[in-house]
Amino acid sequence: MPRYRLVVEYDGGPFCGWQRQENGPSVQAALEAAIFSFCAERVTVSGAGRTDSGVHALGQVAHFDISRDFPADTVRDALNFYMRSAVGAVVVLTAEVAEDGFHARFSATRREYLYRIVNRRVPLALLRGRAWHIVAPLDAAAMHAAGQVLVGKHDFSSFRAAACQADSPLRTLDALTVTEVEEATGREIHIHVQARSFLHSQVRIIAGTLRNVGDGKWGVAEVAAALAARDRAAAGPTAPPDGLYLVGVGY
Amino acid sequence: MPRYRLVVEYDGGPFCGWQRQENGPSVQAALEAAIFSFCAERVTVSGAGRTDSGVHALGQVAHFDISRDFPADTVRDALNFYMRSAVGAVVVLTAEVAEDGFHARFSATRREYLYRIVNRRVPLALLRGRAWHIVAPLDAAAMHAAGQVLVGKHDFSSFRAAACQADSPLRTLDALTVTEVEEATGREIHIHVQARSFLHSQVRIIAGTLRNVGDGKWGVAEVAAALAARDRAAAGPTAPPDGLYLVGVGY
Repeated sequence: MPRYRLVVEYDGGPFCGWQRQENGPSVQAALEAAIFSFCAERVTVSGAGRTDSGVHALGQVAHFDISRDFPADTVRDALNFYMRSAVGAVVVLTAEVAEDGFHARFSATRREYLYRIVNRRVPLALLRGRAWHIVAPLDAAAMHAAGQVLVGKHDFSSFRAAACQADSPLRTLDALTVTEVEEATGREIHIHVQARSFLHSQVRIIAGTLRNVGDGKWGVAEVAAALAARDRAAAGPTAPPDGLYLVGVGY
Repeated sequence: MPRYRLVVEYDGGPFCGWQRQENGPSVQAALEAAIFSFCAERVTVSGAGRTDSGVHALGQVAHFDISRDFPADTVRDALNFYMRSAVGAVVVLTAEVAEDGFHARFSATRREYLYRIVNRRVPLALLRGRAWHIVAPLDAAAMHAAGQVLVGKHDFSSFRAAACQADSPLRTLDALTVTEVEEATGREIHIHVQARSFLHSQVRIIAGTLRNVGDGKWGVAEVAAALAARDRAAAGPTAPPDGLYLVGVGY
């Protein structure tokens, strides 16, 4: 029974998130439907990151088992073929036969996210749904400096959605960088974060907190105090899903 | 009676093009409706480039006259406010009071377009509707070299849609460059062109023709012959609108 490992790109806009839901289309269900169309097997696809509604992926990793052996490239092309007219845009970038014991979620040792902010006066047109629009000029260097407070092993209770199901609020943030990027559509602020795993909404709460720093309301001390409080109410707001991208997963 | 000059960004996907049409929403009509909401005046907005259905703009230029004087920033913010829930995404990047005699279309001396190709095996997810997807690996250097045949003053009858209403097929292409760009979503080929003005579908036919070069079917000689033929059938196919962006207009 071969296990296939996929790298998947999607526009999260039309989806209620990665995970299968009663109330709307999900990325997981789109993949499972395509697998059924391809080989008439009902399988469960496991993803490395259970992205929320509206969150995008450049390199989500997933796996599934089917009973028949197919060349991995056939799996990739067939799934893309059957998803071509699906509700949203989901694309299998690569497919390969997974090594023994591989599990997209439990074997992952590194997850990387990008949070993308467009920092300009006027609303978004071409990037609507693809970035967080913030009008007030943000200080990227200040955001980067304050963000370093969060790097390392901490109790991230302040940076965790109420709905978070993780047993422990302890996480190790391996890296956080904030950079300024000039695009044709205006000035952007990119927040890159990397960790073995993240709590529910952790990246979006980090983005919302660093935004408070970027517009001068908060400094390093306030971010440190928010972390130390171990209380969701102490950190900044949860940034919208539009700006969040699951960039890649390491094993 | 002040004349306002706008720079406008839009996602062409939901629109039947720049120009007002009976059969669907247009960018022009979206702007005119917003102006009416703002100041209760029915005006005609003139654009520098009459982009086709599905064609995007990073920097379309337009103008209109109203009877009352408003600060230009008020005009910008008001139009964006009234377009916030319009069918498509149209945004006024800047507004200013135009100098005497300014006409968005007739005063323009330079138009710049980008044609964007994503060159990868698998379909598009995040860039669906925003680029032309081509699977066969394209040779950007060969495309650039062959494209130089088109630079200069020529009879572009071969690169002109049947529907083109221009009096003359003579145009001067000031610059054409083809570059390779690595994006998170894959390898892209960008075709940049610049001219005082373009014929209907000229950029898209240039893109379709250079694609024939990129995949090795055509060389410099075939592009030169296509130009010399002065016959639409001699050039390559019209590339889809998805990949075309009006980058800017010079005066």
